[in-house]
Amino acid sequence: MSAKIKVAILGATGAVGQRFVQLLENHPWFEISALAASERSAGKAYTEAVNWKLDTPLPERVRKLPVLEAKPGFEAAIAFSGLDSKVAGPIEEEFAQAGYAVISNSKNHRMDEDVPLLLPEINADHIGLIEIQKNKRGYKKGFIVTNSNCSAMALCLGLAPIDQAFGIEKVMVTTLQAISGAGYPGVPALDIVGNVIPYIGEEEEKMERETQKILGKFKNGKIENHPMILSATTTRVPVIDGHTESVNVKLQKRVSLDEVKSAFRNYFSVPQKLKLPSAPEHPVVLKEEIDRPQPRLDVNIQKGMATIVGRVRPCPIFDWKFVILGHNTIRGAAGAAILNAELLKSQGFLS
Amino acid sequence: MSAKIKVAILGATGAVGQRFVQLLENHPWFEISALAASERSAGKAYTEAVNWKLDTPLPERVRKLPVLEAKPGFEAAIAFSGLDSKVAGPIEEEFAQAGYAVISNSKNHRMDEDVPLLLPEINADHIGLIEIQKNKRGYKKGFIVTNSNCSAMALCLGLAPIDQAFGIEKVMVTTLQAISGAGYPGVPALDIVGNVIPYIGEEEEKMERETQKILGKFKNGKIENHPMILSATTTRVPVIDGHTESVNVKLQKRVSLDEVKSAFRNYFSVPQKLKLPSAPEHPVVLKEEIDRPQPRLDVNIQKGMATIVGRVRPCPIFDWKFVILGHNTIRGAAGAAILNAELLKSQGFLS
Amino acid sequence: MSAKIKVAILGATGAVGQRFVQLLENHPWFEISALAASERSAGKAYTEAVNWKLDTPLPERVRKLPVLEAKPGFEAAIAFSGLDSKVAGPIEEEFAQAGYAVISNSKNHRMDEDVPLLLPEINADHIGLIEIQKNKRGYKKGFIVTNSNCSAMALCLGLAPIDQAFGIEKVMVTTLQAISGAGYPGVPALDIVGNVIPYIGEEEEKMERETQKILGKFKNGKIENHPMILSATTTRVPVIDGHTESVNVKLQKRVSLDEVKSAFRNYFSVPQKLKLPSAPEHPVVLKEEIDRPQPRLDVNIQKGMATIVGRVRPCPIFDWKFVILGHNTIRGAAGAAILNAELLKSQGFLS
Amino acid sequence: MSAKIKVAILGATGAVGQRFVQLLENHPWFEISALAASERSAGKAYTEAVNWKLDTPLPERVRKLPVLEAKPGFEAAIAFSGLDSKVAGPIEEEFAQAGYAVISNSKNHRMDEDVPLLLPEINADHIGLIEIQKNKRGYKKGFIVTNSNCSAMALCLGLAPIDQAFGIEKVMVTTLQAISGAGYPGVPALDIVGNVIPYIGEEEEKMERETQKILGKFKNGKIENHPMILSATTTRVPVIDGHTESVNVKLQKRVSLDEVKSAFRNYFSVPQKLKLPSAPEHPVVLKEEIDRPQPRLDVNIQKGMATIVGRVRPCPIFDWKFVILGHNTIRGAAGAAILNAELLKSQGFLS
Repeated sequence: MSAKIKVAILGATGAVGQRFVQLLENHPWFEISALAASERSAGKAYTEAVNWKLDTPLPERVRKLPVLEAKPGFEAAIAFSGLDSKVAGPIEEEFAQAGYAVISNSKNHRMDEDVPLLLPEINADHIGLIEIQKNKRGYKKGFIVTNSNCSAMALCLGLAPIDQAFGIEKVMVTTLQAISGAGYPGVPALDIVGNVIPYIGEEEEKMERETQKILGKFKNGKIENHPMILSATTTRVPVIDGHTESVNVKLQKRVSLDEVKSAFRNYFSVPQKLKLPSAPEHPVVLKEEIDRPQPRLDVNIQKGMATIVGRVRPCPIFDWKFVILGHNTIRGAAGAAILNAELLKSQGFLS
Repeated sequence: MSAKIKVAILGATGAVGQRFVQLLENHPWFEISALAASERSAGKAYTEAVNWKLDTPLPERVRKLPVLEAKPGFEAAIAFSGLDSKVAGPIEEEFAQAGYAVISNSKNHRMDEDVPLLLPEINADHIGLIEIQKNKRGYKKGFIVTNSNCSAMALCLGLAPIDQAFGIEKVMVTTLQAISGAGYPGVPALDIVGNVIPYIGEEEEKMERETQKILGKFKNGKIENHPMILSATTTRVPVIDGHTESVNVKLQKRVSLDEVKSAFRNYFSVPQKLKLPSAPEHPVVLKEEIDRPQPRLDVNIQKGMATIVGRVRPCPIFDWKFVILGHNTIRGAAGAAILNAELLKSQGFLS
Repeated sequence: MSAKIKVAILGATGAVGQRFVQLLENHPWFEISALAASERSAGKAYTEAVNWKLDTPLPERVRKLPVLEAKPGFEAAIAFSGLDSKVAGPIEEEFAQAGYAVISNSKNHRMDEDVPLLLPEINADHIGLIEIQKNKRGYKKGFIVTNSNCSAMALCLGLAPIDQAFGIEKVMVTTLQAISGAGYPGVPALDIVGNVIPYIGEEEEKMERETQKILGKFKNGKIENHPMILSATTTRVPVIDGHTESVNVKLQKRVSLDEVKSAFRNYFSVPQKLKLPSAPEHPVVLKEEIDRPQPRLDVNIQKGMATIVGRVRPCPIFDWKFVILGHNTIRGAAGAAILNAELLKSQGFLS
Repeated sequence: MSAKIKVAILGATGAVGQRFVQLLENHPWFEISALAASERSAGKAYTEAVNWKLDTPLPERVRKLPVLEAKPGFEAAIAFSGLDSKVAGPIEEEFAQAGYAVISNSKNHRMDEDVPLLLPEINADHIGLIEIQKNKRGYKKGFIVTNSNCSAMALCLGLAPIDQAFGIEKVMVTTLQAISGAGYPGVPALDIVGNVIPYIGEEEEKMERETQKILGKFKNGKIENHPMILSATTTRVPVIDGHTESVNVKLQKRVSLDEVKSAFRNYFSVPQKLKLPSAPEHPVVLKEEIDRPQPRLDVNIQKGMATIVGRVRPCPIFDWKFVILGHNTIRGAAGAAILNAELLKSQGFLS
């Protein structure tokens, strides 16, 4: 067995950073070699710097790793970034410049023309942008790849099967998002216990534009956005993990309920074919029970990497309506970045 | 000062029945003279029969009232019904036949052709159906008037201002409904704590069809449904009181954001003109703060009788989107029935 | 009618400050003349500086009041302090020195030997310390009076009736405290939704020592602590308002269950005799229902100024056990300070 | 490999029954051969009869198993009982009479003189009662063994290490119990969302008396109760799984904090020595973080079979106080029964 690829985690003490640490424990291909965070934490052992908030124990291997400043110089090929968007932009560029494959969950570079907003089930071919990016930016070895916002991720995975099969024209979506999506400390308890907050800053715009890019086509060295029109309303509800989305879609053609359900049920794509280690066996799981999916019961299906679809039924205005559920900090954040890294490795981008 | 009108409450120990008792305490026009419930409770004093779940004390006046069986024979002009829909149908007919004004919150007769689905701000003229109903059913003095489902109520009040001003063609709505809407014991805690249930039995159908009737026209002795098309998705969230609704609407004409907001802000209708005791001063309250309305903070505005609208903004697919909040057991149930009774009295139907 | 006494609120934008503003609206004796907060807010209108989190509207009268820096110079006789304890100490002293009656909810001066930890039902005579304080500190007109921590407040009011009647020797208490007790933003939602946090910083020490001072005797110019021994465990639960406390007490003598209940039921003290405007009619309300008190149902009894006691029953180890509930931000904070001000006025300390 | 022992589950569709099904999937020694429930469910396939409420999928193997009536006649050596206590008593006796090893989670026979209230870490020798029971009741091959109430279980495991080391004289405990402890549908959401219910029927009595029996000595063919005195207050909080307990104990001797912590840390007992498949590696896990244990973060430590102890510190009245957390439906119910079965098998009682 050859040695694992060394990876650094930028923003390692934050909510997404903790998920990276959790999900990379015992990863077959990757191994954490460096943890970086803000200056305040730098110098401490990880176990002292982090306020570990996950319900599995802090992995033994990383407890004593020193927390470093987020500056190039680590022995690592990949820099997973869970950095706060206030600082992520230039730091990620610095790491790419220094030769790291920067695989980022932050929003800063998502909409850059030459940066893939990668979602392996849907747009694995967008990695073609990497070469263009390197040329344009003068990166020798490094590059930046991003994954989308958590609510856009679940939406894209719930739309892709029917978009690929029948073509989607319009999407109306209302989300009910988990509090973990806001990071830590994130939402004050006084604001959300027994309550709903019908607004999440910038979230609706992100869902609308990131979805178009993710589902877009890579053509002539550019991403051509998907022409579907989207209208999103995003809300916060007192759920720990799992974004629920109520979706109405208008298709390009008339199809039957069975055809729609089959499209969801049979969805199978690149990461599944490549058997990437973090790929869910079924990227989309269709529930037939009338009151599902539910975050508490379904969010951990396939280790949080599946997207669950339920309540598929005709819409009196558009064509179909259904409910999507996705794990916002696994499939919607750290898990997505790791799957991106696995795709990149399988395609020879990390050698 | 003349004596108050005596009223009976059918289903007095249930969730809606308790709200009737609470809201009728010190009512200027009405006075509870009889409390009726299932055989199991009959014979006990109200304070013993009821499992009082409201956060104001059980009113002194009714503590010792005996709970009676739900059969005509009370000294009362009005029978407010909060009966379970499993039994409400024939009992309400029996009371109407016996001469009572039956003002019901139950679903059984809502869609009867000759029964008004009354919402005084919107369709006060639907009381014209009462005469037709009496003739058709052979009721001498009694009659049945209903109010809508709680989620339809909030939707109608949020739509009416712009429908009346500009005409609505299409409505897409996703609700986030409170647990009190399911009565008591209602939703098991294990199902909803930290969770979302994306399904409420029959709720979507009720919202779609009751809205069309409420906003319909009384013409030639019949209600002509409003021709708008609706598509609803209803979900349950861990909130005690207050249904939140994410709404997208397509209008018949192009108007400006200011015009839409003005329509909401200036909405003023029959109960306000008549100064009915339970009428909110402003039936619709427009919030400008970006993260409102919120159930915990806004549900009790104007004693739970107002409908709160916020986040009014353009919709990329339809014309406008906004968020509605209504108190589901006050404006959406018992308070609505009481307002209906006040309208009926003011129009001479209770003399 | 003579003019009302002008009052300033220090820390007016915080959680306790907002309660001061809410509870002082339409107060018969006091009138807000100045709102002070941190430099960051200073200069703005209150409605812009505050993130209003109460479920009643921001009072019209204060919306446009400018927020000032917390420095003497206001036209006011009283300075209610809801300041953060990080800054409260010296600011409160500065105001006392400048002639204001400082009535503080902050912890900084509570245990000062010459500062009353005032709870009018229990130790109205502790105001005798004020004269001593003024002499000692060289205050001419001003002085500092404090109220206790919210969990100590409920405990003291639940203990006082039986302590006064029978004498208490030992108290074991475990609390289940509301999130509003931590202020705003306070507890992160991720930490408490569907969870219990079995620790609140410094809370156990405060409960143990403040209770002894509150129930202590004013003798020879000093407070002699009550000799009871206390042992507290404090926890946080996902409740908005209302601290629940499970209490076991050992008395100095053997009494019957009826005697204990009578002591609670008949408790009536100085604020009730003086008919102070904010005094609850019954400072302690005894519930006989087996599953009460409950925060959601009982916390607002007597406008949040009562302390609710229930489940009084024998303890196999000590003598009695029972459950106490108190509204932590009304009776346990701003309401307590206002009641203290009312006592001071009625005793001539504010003229 | 020899065949697995066949087991039946009585009450298989209930909350505890579902846990049995979940925990027995892939058990190395046992294999479900029969599922029994009430007449209403009998005849259906398990997947249709059950309203599966766990967050792992319904195991493939049992989906199609027919649900049978709870009457002897199954091909099974063990009958795990999660029956409702309204019916459990005589059914369990019938099964024991018919030759089954009845391993019950129901309360009915727990306090029977000749029935072990078995907790393998603490009283493995209580299985000596089985022979006495068989003789007394005339059971040929079958017998009844019970496990305790969920809150007593966590308490006993939290007390045993220091009781065995130093002797406990008195225990004061206040619990904060999860809603799953009430079964399904169990607690209505309206009663517990944002609330605390300071009462659980019969729970305090169960905790007090079951603890004495569990920690008691098997001597001369009888259980001699432990002489410690207990005083319990039990409350319900909005937590899904995990009972938290605030405990104060008085010991027979003075020991140091280090000695107390060592007793917890080094606790190791029969199931650990025997390496029973469901035995947690460490039956008691001591947390040193000041704000732990917390149900959301710690309840699944060692697959829900460990008991977590934290906040160990001196008590001003007794000797020590600390907080215990246990998984109420795993270690506190189905998992406990399975561990009991494993002990019985290892001691030759199932051959």
